[in-house]
Amino acid sequence: MSGTEQPTEECVVIAGVGLIGGSAALAIRQVAPQARIIGIGRNAERMQRAVDTGLLDQWYGRVDASEIPAGSLGLVCLPVDRVAECSRQLLQAGCDVVTDAGSVKAAICSALSDLPGFVGAHPIAGSEQSGFEHADGGLFAGRICVICREDVEHPAVQRTLRFWHLLRMDCHIMPAVRHDHVLARTSHLPHILASVAAGCVTDEELMFAGSGFRDTTRIAAGGDALWSSILLENSSACISAVDAAMQRLSEYRSALVGHEEETLRSLWADAANRRRRLHDPEIQSSM
Amino acid sequence: MSGTEQPTEECVVIAGVGLIGGSAALAIRQVAPQARIIGIGRNAERMQRAVDTGLLDQWYGRVDASEIPAGSLGLVCLPVDRVAECSRQLLQAGCDVVTDAGSVKAAICSALSDLPGFVGAHPIAGSEQSGFEHADGGLFAGRICVICREDVEHPAVQRTLRFWHLLRMDCHIMPAVRHDHVLARTSHLPHILASVAAGCVTDEELMFAGSGFRDTTRIAAGGDALWSSILLENSSACISAVDAAMQRLSEYRSALVGHEEETLRSLWADAANRRRRLHDPEIQSSM
Repeated sequence: MSGTEQPTEECVVIAGVGLIGGSAALAIRQVAPQARIIGIGRNAERMQRAVDTGLLDQWYGRVDASEIPAGSLGLVCLPVDRVAECSRQLLQAGCDVVTDAGSVKAAICSALSDLPGFVGAHPIAGSEQSGFEHADGGLFAGRICVICREDVEHPAVQRTLRFWHLLRMDCHIMPAVRHDHVLARTSHLPHILASVAAGCVTDEELMFAGSGFRDTTRIAAGGDALWSSILLENSSACISAVDAAMQRLSEYRSALVGHEEETLRSLWADAANRRRRLHDPEIQSSM
Repeated sequence: MSGTEQPTEECVVIAGVGLIGGSAALAIRQVAPQARIIGIGRNAERMQRAVDTGLLDQWYGRVDASEIPAGSLGLVCLPVDRVAECSRQLLQAGCDVVTDAGSVKAAICSALSDLPGFVGAHPIAGSEQSGFEHADGGLFAGRICVICREDVEHPAVQRTLRFWHLLRMDCHIMPAVRHDHVLARTSHLPHILASVAAGCVTDEELMFAGSGFRDTTRIAAGGDALWSSILLENSSACISAVDAAMQRLSEYRSALVGHEEETLRSLWADAANRRRRLHDPEIQSSM
């Protein structure tokens, strides 16, 4: 295994050059300007534009062993249902280590458990926008990246940790199943609830929406292909999260029907206190 | 009725000098610097500070006929369950016209239907913050104010329309019951869903929350007394909105259980398209 001594990366192959892949490329340009960045993508016109604007050094339409320098690090930024296949191809084509940016981890990590060079990751950073035109080199800085491997001493894991640190992320080791449960609560359920909120308003009513509606439903504007694949890839944890939400929603309903002010205040205060702790540095550092 | 000829206001009495009342005072200072602003509030220390900082000209602890100049305009910015009583007192104490900023209208307008000087209003503007320290003179500019009176030619309604226009709001006439139905969908349900999303996450999971969670749950951090009174005041429209949300949530659940990709994509796309229309000027102007 090469790479354990390297202070940085010499060549990174990014499969999928959208918002996340493009932001990773920009961040690499900032922190490791000597690194060669190869993009893999299907849309020739867009990929060429990414080269022309300097985001990538080269691009290829598919993973080809003859074009990938041995010892490269692969970064797969494709929709979750295409990560496993592409990661396997990159490892076979000569990448020493492949990591990814998929927001659901158990299925991917399980499908690649025979390949120690694959280190599943989830950089928790993003936006409802898509395309490398919206890429932001600072997207990852100071944010958490979950790494789903427990053999942290393995050189592939060590190199992956260094890579995400290079992008100024704060890495946390966590089993893939636990990651998927946590993300179902912190991301996938909020997306479903934002979508439900947006879906309960007619066009006519929309003009009376204020800033609360705007913020609460912002993430409901994401792409349907992207989000249906994430939710299906994490369906069991999402079903359990939806059940928890339906339980709380029926507690709200009962309190409204029974005009129970105390119950309503306590339901509200419990969630409000939790939300306010999001800014609490005590909690952020106690993990 | 005085006031129909006035281009602006000479004296405005603001009952409840929190975020909304304070922002109205600031906005009045900007557009009508000659207007006298009297505040009514219980907390002597805070009210005196509002006078000391120049937000108010005077303050009183309660509505007192001897202190209120005849012909004043009253603006009630109290929690919805205290608007009706205070509005009645202001009209009895000498205000010609009283309007309010309550976000639920049917109960208030019905309780005051014997007083033609009361013109129920809902300026759709706010923040999850509270207190006049967070007041913003631009809070209302360009936003919609719903006016719940159909006799628009009535001098009290005309004066109220001019007042909210003075604060640079775009006024819409709408029956109170219709307003409450619309706001249940565009505001109260999103608040409940934001609270549900925040309530389904443990403290330990909170550190893995990204910007999506942050935005979706922002409005869940509001005060429990404020929000339980709003939801209870609008309970029947809120129950119907919660039922619509539970229906959509169970459609999501079924699609996840049955691994129905097409259903999931169509549920998502329907809401996403609606959310994207929030920025569509065609819709904003077609009402």
